[in-house]
Amino acid sequence: MTQIVGHFIDGEVVEDSSRTQDVFDPALGEVATQVALASKDTVEMAIASAQKAFPEWRNTPPLKRARIMFRFKELLEENRDKICHLLGKEHGKILHDAAGELQRGIENVEYACGAPELLKGEYSKNAGPNVDSWSELQSIGVVAGITPFNFPAMVPMWMFPLAIVCGNCFILKPSERNPSAPLFLAQLLHQAGLPKGVLNVVNGDKQAVDAILEDKRVKAVSFVGSTPIAEHIYTKATASGKRCQALGGAKNHAIIMPDADMDNAVNQLLGAAFGSSGERCMALSVVVAVGDKAADALIEKMTTAMQSLKVGVFDNTDNDFGPVITKQHQEKVVGYIDSAEADGAQIVVDGRDLKVEGYEKGYFVGATLIDNVQAEMDSYKAEIFGPVLQVMRVESMEQAMQLINDHEYGNGTCIFTRDGEAARYFSDNIEVGMVGINVPLPVPVAYHSFGGWKRSLFGDLSAYGPDGVKFYTKRKTITQRWPSSGVREGASFAFPS
Amino acid sequence: MTQIVGHFIDGEVVEDSSRTQDVFDPALGEVATQVALASKDTVEMAIASAQKAFPEWRNTPPLKRARIMFRFKELLEENRDKICHLLGKEHGKILHDAAGELQRGIENVEYACGAPELLKGEYSKNAGPNVDSWSELQSIGVVAGITPFNFPAMVPMWMFPLAIVCGNCFILKPSERNPSAPLFLAQLLHQAGLPKGVLNVVNGDKQAVDAILEDKRVKAVSFVGSTPIAEHIYTKATASGKRCQALGGAKNHAIIMPDADMDNAVNQLLGAAFGSSGERCMALSVVVAVGDKAADALIEKMTTAMQSLKVGVFDNTDNDFGPVITKQHQEKVVGYIDSAEADGAQIVVDGRDLKVEGYEKGYFVGATLIDNVQAEMDSYKAEIFGPVLQVMRVESMEQAMQLINDHEYGNGTCIFTRDGEAARYFSDNIEVGMVGINVPLPVPVAYHSFGGWKRSLFGDLSAYGPDGVKFYTKRKTITQRWPSSGVREGASFAFPS
Amino acid sequence: MTQIVGHFIDGEVVEDSSRTQDVFDPALGEVATQVALASKDTVEMAIASAQKAFPEWRNTPPLKRARIMFRFKELLEENRDKICHLLGKEHGKILHDAAGELQRGIENVEYACGAPELLKGEYSKNAGPNVDSWSELQSIGVVAGITPFNFPAMVPMWMFPLAIVCGNCFILKPSERNPSAPLFLAQLLHQAGLPKGVLNVVNGDKQAVDAILEDKRVKAVSFVGSTPIAEHIYTKATASGKRCQALGGAKNHAIIMPDADMDNAVNQLLGAAFGSSGERCMALSVVVAVGDKAADALIEKMTTAMQSLKVGVFDNTDNDFGPVITKQHQEKVVGYIDSAEADGAQIVVDGRDLKVEGYEKGYFVGATLIDNVQAEMDSYKAEIFGPVLQVMRVESMEQAMQLINDHEYGNGTCIFTRDGEAARYFSDNIEVGMVGINVPLPVPVAYHSFGGWKRSLFGDLSAYGPDGVKFYTKRKTITQRWPSSGVREGASFAFPS
Amino acid sequence: MTQIVGHFIDGEVVEDSSRTQDVFDPALGEVATQVALASKDTVEMAIASAQKAFPEWRNTPPLKRARIMFRFKELLEENRDKICHLLGKEHGKILHDAAGELQRGIENVEYACGAPELLKGEYSKNAGPNVDSWSELQSIGVVAGITPFNFPAMVPMWMFPLAIVCGNCFILKPSERNPSAPLFLAQLLHQAGLPKGVLNVVNGDKQAVDAILEDKRVKAVSFVGSTPIAEHIYTKATASGKRCQALGGAKNHAIIMPDADMDNAVNQLLGAAFGSSGERCMALSVVVAVGDKAADALIEKMTTAMQSLKVGVFDNTDNDFGPVITKQHQEKVVGYIDSAEADGAQIVVDGRDLKVEGYEKGYFVGATLIDNVQAEMDSYKAEIFGPVLQVMRVESMEQAMQLINDHEYGNGTCIFTRDGEAARYFSDNIEVGMVGINVPLPVPVAYHSFGGWKRSLFGDLSAYGPDGVKFYTKRKTITQRWPSSGVREGASFAFPS
Repeated sequence: MTQIVGHFIDGEVVEDSSRTQDVFDPALGEVATQVALASKDTVEMAIASAQKAFPEWRNTPPLKRARIMFRFKELLEENRDKICHLLGKEHGKILHDAAGELQRGIENVEYACGAPELLKGEYSKNAGPNVDSWSELQSIGVVAGITPFNFPAMVPMWMFPLAIVCGNCFILKPSERNPSAPLFLAQLLHQAGLPKGVLNVVNGDKQAVDAILEDKRVKAVSFVGSTPIAEHIYTKATASGKRCQALGGAKNHAIIMPDADMDNAVNQLLGAAFGSSGERCMALSVVVAVGDKAADALIEKMTTAMQSLKVGVFDNTDNDFGPVITKQHQEKVVGYIDSAEADGAQIVVDGRDLKVEGYEKGYFVGATLIDNVQAEMDSYKAEIFGPVLQVMRVESMEQAMQLINDHEYGNGTCIFTRDGEAARYFSDNIEVGMVGINVPLPVPVAYHSFGGWKRSLFGDLSAYGPDGVKFYTKRKTITQRWPSSGVREGASFAFPS
Repeated sequence: MTQIVGHFIDGEVVEDSSRTQDVFDPALGEVATQVALASKDTVEMAIASAQKAFPEWRNTPPLKRARIMFRFKELLEENRDKICHLLGKEHGKILHDAAGELQRGIENVEYACGAPELLKGEYSKNAGPNVDSWSELQSIGVVAGITPFNFPAMVPMWMFPLAIVCGNCFILKPSERNPSAPLFLAQLLHQAGLPKGVLNVVNGDKQAVDAILEDKRVKAVSFVGSTPIAEHIYTKATASGKRCQALGGAKNHAIIMPDADMDNAVNQLLGAAFGSSGERCMALSVVVAVGDKAADALIEKMTTAMQSLKVGVFDNTDNDFGPVITKQHQEKVVGYIDSAEADGAQIVVDGRDLKVEGYEKGYFVGATLIDNVQAEMDSYKAEIFGPVLQVMRVESMEQAMQLINDHEYGNGTCIFTRDGEAARYFSDNIEVGMVGINVPLPVPVAYHSFGGWKRSLFGDLSAYGPDGVKFYTKRKTITQRWPSSGVREGASFAFPS
Repeated sequence: MTQIVGHFIDGEVVEDSSRTQDVFDPALGEVATQVALASKDTVEMAIASAQKAFPEWRNTPPLKRARIMFRFKELLEENRDKICHLLGKEHGKILHDAAGELQRGIENVEYACGAPELLKGEYSKNAGPNVDSWSELQSIGVVAGITPFNFPAMVPMWMFPLAIVCGNCFILKPSERNPSAPLFLAQLLHQAGLPKGVLNVVNGDKQAVDAILEDKRVKAVSFVGSTPIAEHIYTKATASGKRCQALGGAKNHAIIMPDADMDNAVNQLLGAAFGSSGERCMALSVVVAVGDKAADALIEKMTTAMQSLKVGVFDNTDNDFGPVITKQHQEKVVGYIDSAEADGAQIVVDGRDLKVEGYEKGYFVGATLIDNVQAEMDSYKAEIFGPVLQVMRVESMEQAMQLINDHEYGNGTCIFTRDGEAARYFSDNIEVGMVGINVPLPVPVAYHSFGGWKRSLFGDLSAYGPDGVKFYTKRKTITQRWPSSGVREGASFAFPS
Repeated sequence: MTQIVGHFIDGEVVEDSSRTQDVFDPALGEVATQVALASKDTVEMAIASAQKAFPEWRNTPPLKRARIMFRFKELLEENRDKICHLLGKEHGKILHDAAGELQRGIENVEYACGAPELLKGEYSKNAGPNVDSWSELQSIGVVAGITPFNFPAMVPMWMFPLAIVCGNCFILKPSERNPSAPLFLAQLLHQAGLPKGVLNVVNGDKQAVDAILEDKRVKAVSFVGSTPIAEHIYTKATASGKRCQALGGAKNHAIIMPDADMDNAVNQLLGAAFGSSGERCMALSVVVAVGDKAADALIEKMTTAMQSLKVGVFDNTDNDFGPVITKQHQEKVVGYIDSAEADGAQIVVDGRDLKVEGYEKGYFVGATLIDNVQAEMDSYKAEIFGPVLQVMRVESMEQAMQLINDHEYGNGTCIFTRDGEAARYFSDNIEVGMVGINVPLPVPVAYHSFGGWKRSLFGDLSAYGPDGVKFYTKRKTITQRWPSSGVREGASFAFPS
């Protein structure tokens, strides 16, 4: 019998069960629990709570706000096992992968601990004669985050710790596929001392999203998800006067240069392509080999390496990756492999018929390697979001870069080479926001910012890091001149004391 | 017989005269010249020129780009008289006011000269073991600016020097009311050494604007104008995936505290309210006096001070301000004074029937002072954009601040006081982006950024200064690890030299 | 029977008892324990340990170094009571005062947690054509800190957390008056995960100091103490090629303007003058009243307020302050009061004959207020470092500022006023490094930097905060161009794989 | 008959001829002019002038100070030919080399134009509840620069533009070998609008230097010269309480890796080793070849390339370099070549007996290449400061780096390689402050900072760029809280207006 996952509003769990939806365990292929779906009223209650908490929270010194984040970090570390278990159960990712996700989330909390440093304005003495001017990064008010199923803990922690430490109150609308982990995070943050109302979690579907987007009290929206939804959110949020950053899909290419250290490259690609079943917006899903010699070596070594990959349930840490998120998604991934085959590509390693013993109803897809993929194939154009690595063969680095620059997305990319000039030319001229040199998953560390180019990000500020601080604050500029003063000049002796 | 003001495309003036519009001399009330109105084709030609110039320009070192701005500053100073004359002739502002406008524009050019400093990224050694990570602020590509009639030189220079020095190519669509000055600026910048195509000017109306907004090659749009248009531009530009900052209208209040140095305040307000006929988005159009004693003193001193104001033609520098921009605008301003009167406010000084000898057809409105204005009057709600100062009377500083915070706009505001705590409380809690303490026009200097709050700015980055650099660049983050190297370890001796 | 307080070298407490010195409990006036005095050999052993630990520590990613500081903060909070007790026992300060000291130390640890942000270098793409340049803030090596008796926990924590998180190895030579707290801090930091050798503590006297100053392996020295010693340390350290920042004495003045909120000022001054028995380099020891009216009011209110001050032993938290550090220091403080009296000043409140019941041998001096002090008196020229507040009377703000600017020291100062212009004029023109506006102890928060002017600081970088990062790192600038590459251009196909 | 080069004090050239010294034309080997040698009185007059100018200059807004630098840049460009001629005549460097020197100087002026940006302090709102805190970078006062003969224009411009734009008044003591160019620079800066007294030039010898170092009114000293003098200046200046940065000698090594592009390397080394006759602190004077194959290739190609080098008089721009500075210096350089030969090194190309037709008395030394140099040779240990390139042969990159790290100096260094990992390992671990990757003269651009390590720089802040701003300003931190205010709360209605 399942319990319902509720909302977290004004410091308390609210179990609003008028509308609910099933949450699955993707390894078992069974319903694990149910999640409440917020009505417009519930969302408005959360916003009202945030609005009420705002005046006091914005006036709390940044150092005090930061100290709650210091304590939150401690609690995250103490509750590491529980959080990873929640992630594994509802998402399917293996515990070591969940631990990695959590760690990246904690890094963002650590960055938020630096709020007093990050919120410094700029002070100009004598901007004019006896005129001083300075900037303040003031809190915005109520801001919201809408986050995807693939990182139920990390992506929310890209957003709310920084938004909150900047003095804002936050509404989190996590994915309804795996709501338990984000709810627990909110509880921990309150345990760390956050005043009620500063962070509210509402679970829900489009109704909740629309309620957020339409409410005038919400001043900013951060979103991570697929490109069509990202574009919709961005258009709707900006049209209602909000600031918005909306991160969308990706198709991340690695270029293998003839001088690459091939063993190293294969080793790196294995995790980058198949980790978390490829359900990462930074997953490496296309390898472009420059020259057939490199391509042949890659295919051979990769095929061998893929033999040892283990697929299965999250709490067996011998496994390398788990199921995909839903039955429908499993079918979609398999469909893309079918279509690549139909379009003439070679399925070198085929993960379509994988069965995992004891988990026969689980949504598993095995690691798949496809050779001779062409730019016009559907499997190339779309973001598959599964454990599928496609190989393309080109004659030159220029051709490889052209492929990448022509693609709709521009999230991450990588080159494998030993050559300084190739690396520099690539990073300078590639139309992608996050670039790796021999690093296949170039996710910026928490003290830099995360953002793709082209249709991978809508907005002008990237997520978290320095751009996150800009996004979650608004600039106020003060210009000050004091008129000549009786007090200073001695007239003040007559001043009534 | 008038000459046609053309476009500036690919380094040359293009006299495309298929569609034209009259440009008036507002002091004479006569047609001064005509301006070409660009067709969609003309706009696309300009964009194509910019697109072509981009690859080389983005690769030009920032220091070299900055040196063109150093030279541009020299040319602006050498051509000061000519530029001021163009401004006066087509806008009506007095030469000393035009010189002030130009000077604020030059300050933005000076700031742009610091490009090598401003474009520094952040470098993190050992982001992980032997992994380095850094950010680059890369050029965006083709970007556009759409600018208003009231600062034909300054507002374009808020935009194009910084955009260009950041490695972008720029399309300027200035106001069709006074196109000569911006066209001349573009010519000077080319004289300073700018490669052709890097800055293009297209004159035009809604057709040109729509062509810019709809073109996928334009990556960013900066706009300054009225709020309804700003909102439209922002919604349309963001919906087509561009980044956009759109600055709109204003209603800037000054609070006069009982302890203010009243002579100083009156002196400051005179220029802030009536300078440039009040046609400034930072004009001080409302004074809120705290206590009747302050209000009475203000009215009395202001009435006296206004006697000496001189209104007339731009090239007589004894004049304090000139005409408003058009006949229609003159009527609109007078209409607001009428409506205030009808609504029960007192017209203390009445500028409605002003006649300027020798310029009887000019669009003049005299300086006007209105007392006992109430929040529900139309004259209070709207941005009048004329030489009209309205006085409101309140009992407390809190009431004064509430008025400001309740208004639709949040561009600029000011308080007159000698008291440190009043100033700090005001600047902290007022919902306005640019705040003056005894400074009635708190326009941030060029090395800070300009931006209002609420419906005065759409977007998350302010204009010019540090925010301008962010707006005109996009972040790229590189993460780099070098695999162990034969060269370093000595295997390299066998290396083919 | 007393135990000996040893050193902490290479991760272990070293009980080197060849030379020792008594450590007193100043409230009891009795020996509390003994401290080992390091020989030159012991110091060199510590330096050798640090030197050995350096290569691995400098290569540890800043994020990992920072995480040890996160854990150190937790341990400091868990051990708050023990640390405060150690401070109270050997220094005499009341537990609430000790808690305040510890809290300021923890703030510096919190700042150090931001190391990844603080250590960012600056990256310039295209410093020349295809030439990039960036700066790194590299670790220096072995650095040392020599710290005073008055803040046995805080001043060391101004230094070692930041130095260590910047990748350096640290030798701490704390005051031999109260060595137990710093030793315990070192143990906690190792408990937090610091590798052995990265922090070593050597107790000792001039022999230890000289060994540090003369050792070529020590690259930088931070010192806090009296001005004559600071000057000696600075001269000696720089002559041996080290970088050095040496903070010395102070004589901090507050100006009371006629418009000051006198109740607030008195309330603030009480703690600032007498807290910690005035044994603070930021203690407020002189009040300059502008006008006799202000002076008379100040004297009257201060006299009344001082009635309620309680002096006694550290673990009775009803007490306001405790004894001074030694018998000799007690005599020195009393001597200055005597000399002021002899020079003609009025002893308004006299703390010379204070007896504390049950602690008759304790080194107590009661809170003392002296009026009509003159600039030529010895009690004015010297830093008394006791609970003595001297009042001077002047006719104007200019006279008050002249007094301050003429004094040898320039550590901290403060003005009490409500007037914006007086405050701005004061802060602009006063020759003092740390300035308070209605804040009597303007100690910069941990994310700003601490440093006096004139003979209060020798060196060009202040302590802790942003300047601390500069002091504990050395700049390396890399300029990079890659020659055109066979790999990129395709020659690479022939490359031996 | 020669004219005397005087001083520039209080805005005027002072021709104080009591003591003079010959200035030579090194190509002719004849006296070109004479320079006045300042007495202590003359230096004190200059300091007094600076002291007098300081109060007004520090209060001049940074933007206004910067505008004088904008104008100074224009004048430098207009007077380029004259300055280069002065440099060539008294130093001997060829006009194109002089133009390069001037250009690097101008870059520092361009950087100084950014003063309003560079002088921003940090502003922290709510450092505590209702407490704000910010930092100001205040001017120091009178500061001095002592500069060497080898860059008579550039090195002074590393110092005075930045010092002055930071609000200081400057005393320049240039080399007495070539005083005409710096004197002319001072005149140009005054022509640009600098108030008199803000920059003073005193020519002189040790007497002038000592007068500067001993004067208490001088608050900071920047020095560039040889290491023994640098150390003396640093010790003396710091002992008298001044801040000091003293840049000394160098021995800059290039490592040639086996994979280097040898043609490119040779081409680069030619200029880096022999340009300006090797009289540069960043001259590349040692090449360390890894492997005999690389060494042999290097020697062969370098020998060939050196054939085409032309040596002669400055105003024939076909020449590559000119004479060394004095007869004595010529003898010293030749002596080092002799000693290398005596110690067993091979003189591959010998420049000792060079005669230049028409300039038989000139102080010429031809380009010299020496192979098989060993670490214990005098010619290796010392800084030769002549057109002499020494080659060392090692077996591995580690050996090459060990050589560099063992050398007394740590100014500049460079590696030639195509390999990313070799470059990264080198730049990370080499004990040198300025590192080139395929860039033989890694002089940081003006918006980074110049500073060597080890005995190449005494002090903790590098020259020019961001560190220069720190060096020429002192931090003031203000902490502000306003007590609750009658004015804000309405009591103020009774306020006397």
